[in-house]
Amino acid sequence: MIYNKITPLILEKLQQIVGETYVMFDPESQANYGHDQTEKLLFLPEVVIKPRTAEEIGEILIIANKELIPVTPRGAGTGLSGGALPVYGGIILSMERFNEIIEIDERNLQATVEPGVINEVFQNAVIALGLFYPPDPASKGSCFLGGNVAESSGGPKCVKYGTTKDYILNLEVVLPTGEIIYTGANTLKNSTGYNLTQLMVGSEGTLGIVTKIIVKLLPYPKHNLLILVPFRSLDEACSAVSEVFRAGFIPSAMELMERDALDWVIRYVESSVVKLEDDIQAHLLIELDGNDLEILMKEIEAIAELIAKYNIGDILFADSEAQKQELWKLRRKINEAVTANAKSKEQDTVVPRAELPKLVRGVKQIGNNYNFRSVCYGHAGDGNLHIRIIKGDLTDEQWNGQYIKNAIAEIFILCKQLNGTISGEHGIGLIQQEYMGIVFSEKALSIQKGIKQVFDPKRILNPGKMFG
Amino acid sequence: MIYNKITPLILEKLQQIVGETYVMFDPESQANYGHDQTEKLLFLPEVVIKPRTAEEIGEILIIANKELIPVTPRGAGTGLSGGALPVYGGIILSMERFNEIIEIDERNLQATVEPGVINEVFQNAVIALGLFYPPDPASKGSCFLGGNVAESSGGPKCVKYGTTKDYILNLEVVLPTGEIIYTGANTLKNSTGYNLTQLMVGSEGTLGIVTKIIVKLLPYPKHNLLILVPFRSLDEACSAVSEVFRAGFIPSAMELMERDALDWVIRYVESSVVKLEDDIQAHLLIELDGNDLEILMKEIEAIAELIAKYNIGDILFADSEAQKQELWKLRRKINEAVTANAKSKEQDTVVPRAELPKLVRGVKQIGNNYNFRSVCYGHAGDGNLHIRIIKGDLTDEQWNGQYIKNAIAEIFILCKQLNGTISGEHGIGLIQQEYMGIVFSEKALSIQKGIKQVFDPKRILNPGKMFG
Repeated sequence: MIYNKITPLILEKLQQIVGETYVMFDPESQANYGHDQTEKLLFLPEVVIKPRTAEEIGEILIIANKELIPVTPRGAGTGLSGGALPVYGGIILSMERFNEIIEIDERNLQATVEPGVINEVFQNAVIALGLFYPPDPASKGSCFLGGNVAESSGGPKCVKYGTTKDYILNLEVVLPTGEIIYTGANTLKNSTGYNLTQLMVGSEGTLGIVTKIIVKLLPYPKHNLLILVPFRSLDEACSAVSEVFRAGFIPSAMELMERDALDWVIRYVESSVVKLEDDIQAHLLIELDGNDLEILMKEIEAIAELIAKYNIGDILFADSEAQKQELWKLRRKINEAVTANAKSKEQDTVVPRAELPKLVRGVKQIGNNYNFRSVCYGHAGDGNLHIRIIKGDLTDEQWNGQYIKNAIAEIFILCKQLNGTISGEHGIGLIQQEYMGIVFSEKALSIQKGIKQVFDPKRILNPGKMFG
Repeated sequence: MIYNKITPLILEKLQQIVGETYVMFDPESQANYGHDQTEKLLFLPEVVIKPRTAEEIGEILIIANKELIPVTPRGAGTGLSGGALPVYGGIILSMERFNEIIEIDERNLQATVEPGVINEVFQNAVIALGLFYPPDPASKGSCFLGGNVAESSGGPKCVKYGTTKDYILNLEVVLPTGEIIYTGANTLKNSTGYNLTQLMVGSEGTLGIVTKIIVKLLPYPKHNLLILVPFRSLDEACSAVSEVFRAGFIPSAMELMERDALDWVIRYVESSVVKLEDDIQAHLLIELDGNDLEILMKEIEAIAELIAKYNIGDILFADSEAQKQELWKLRRKINEAVTANAKSKEQDTVVPRAELPKLVRGVKQIGNNYNFRSVCYGHAGDGNLHIRIIKGDLTDEQWNGQYIKNAIAEIFILCKQLNGTISGEHGIGLIQQEYMGIVFSEKALSIQKGIKQVFDPKRILNPGKMFG
């Protein structure tokens, strides 16, 4: 695609729509909005616009269509697949002013929120009313709900409660051509027309810009218990995961941390809650929640007993809220800790959970073949394994070129063979698009491109993502 | 659309694909496959074809594309919106030979099934392994899983467990143009490309023909309790529904039956389990399930206490498996009983659950204005109310013409005003399509038509449905 540059005349029109204050084109703003949390990538937008209403966005998109200006929507910029990077320049449409929780409807256990609300802010607002919004990415303290919708984000609690997609009832969306639609209804069931709501969720800002989100809520579970189980073998830790579920338990979290991940994060946050023994290769962090503490105690003991047949160390039962928070902090900070500790690339693989041991063995074998180390962690209960490939001794040429891409492709081919896929919760964005052919047939891809064309005939919205 | 007739030459080609035995065009077969359970509608297909493989379906669709022959896929013919009616003649593609449960994967709590497997057959197969597939339409004893996918079917258990869409991980689909694709991966999480799986679920056989279904399973809950609560006011019964949820309970079923519905079904199945007192206007059937019987007892008592403030009669606690079965039979047979008792039209309305009282009041008011009685029942916990409009004293002209359509439109406009929609689980099919404009803007409809065009450029697959 060839796009036009933003002329002074176009800039003036944009300023008329949102007001001069909310159109920025100084080098500092361009730099601030030119990256997200995906590796060290930087693409400068020409202008950053901060609209406040769906109507304003509609007007901006009509101009962008007429003038062929690329528009890249952006939430909090916490994405890990480069979805918010303005690879063709043009307009960054920052949603940060859409920051209102419009209504928490206690009667219907629903809420209407704007996309610029921070995940944790919203979670706390509903918890205050005894309600529960489970999707909780590691970045929940800063990521926007709109970004969560765009990537169909997950988090630790999704193993029991489902991902973002499972909580979205209805969306107000500005289409790339400027019209404002609702995708569905505010109901738990809906067999009325094609499921535009779920087509929009996970479409990474390529089909429309979400301006209102209607989510379902649950009653907040009264209690939870948390244990940390050290394993002497990574393989056994992976095997234990599916065994717990097969025995009929549904933990509210089941997180895996390979040795290095925990080691690095303990040092990174200077925590003393866990003493990492020399012979421990991996940990499972297991949480149960529910309304009856006695039942939870029984269940956690039964799980501990079930797991005891593996070669494990001493199980740590978190015995205070502070200790729980500390353990969760370790888990949530792994991403930062690994980034601080080593140059690395993260893959967001996902397989059916009982295939985790095969995936991990395969990844380590591929690492041997290509001469890299890897650190694995993530939402093991979902089969969602984050694999950090460490640069280590690889040359810059290997790291930046086809060499490492071949290795990544091998990992993804293995995922596909195990009936899995290449992203569980981070999305395709910019950096994974070249691997889409591994999991989708040519026809399945062309159908998706056709859908894109229906929504966005001039391909002005978030170009260069998902399919290029 | 103008379609061609099936010539002897085309017929011969079709016979070559599936074998002569599986191509039927005698008048009896045409009549058998010309109706479903939607009112008394009949549309004769030219031929009925019963393929056995996805590849055969692909070949049939390639011919249909080339020759412009309409193809209507059909499951068990239990649909209530006319989705399987061959309104343009042509080919009925019966999926009845796709009747194999390919794999129940206990390690991953997943199963791979063919679309012609009967819902209850599959449910029982997984229950035998201690597993649970919750979606359970009233027609579960005969409806096919493929039809459930096509309509995103619900059922009583969906209030706690979600509808069909929430259990579909991945689909093998033959596209209208003949290619076979998988829509996703066999994983609980997936942020890889557009959600083609959920686009296919509920698309009523207009976008492709599902040939393999990968579903997720749950551990089967060990216990359940069932109570029947008689209310002296329909309005109060509706109000009680949202109150139970707001108090933090999540029943595994919460069904509403208006007086006439229960009255008629008691006589229809000649049941003596319920004695219907004269002053009772509605019943709630409330089920709880879980793994701990003591907890369930406590919860059901708390619910009974919560509801006691309403003007209710004596609560019936089902005290045996036989009594539970009998109560569920009453609920499941309402559809048949009402059909046997009165000429009627069923609407599958759905609203946020706390809006049920407003919906019911509005429906009764519209009935007063248009001079018809109605009987309401359904999945109140989901806000999914089936409204049977009784012909009664209406003239044939009123019943078959614009008069009753205006009344239905008023009901649907009310649903929309209450943030609901026009179908919760039956689909749009043939009979509801003229009302789509009530809930979707023109642009939202044109987007859907555009998607249809991407999948089915010659519009040979299930024409005349959803958008006409």
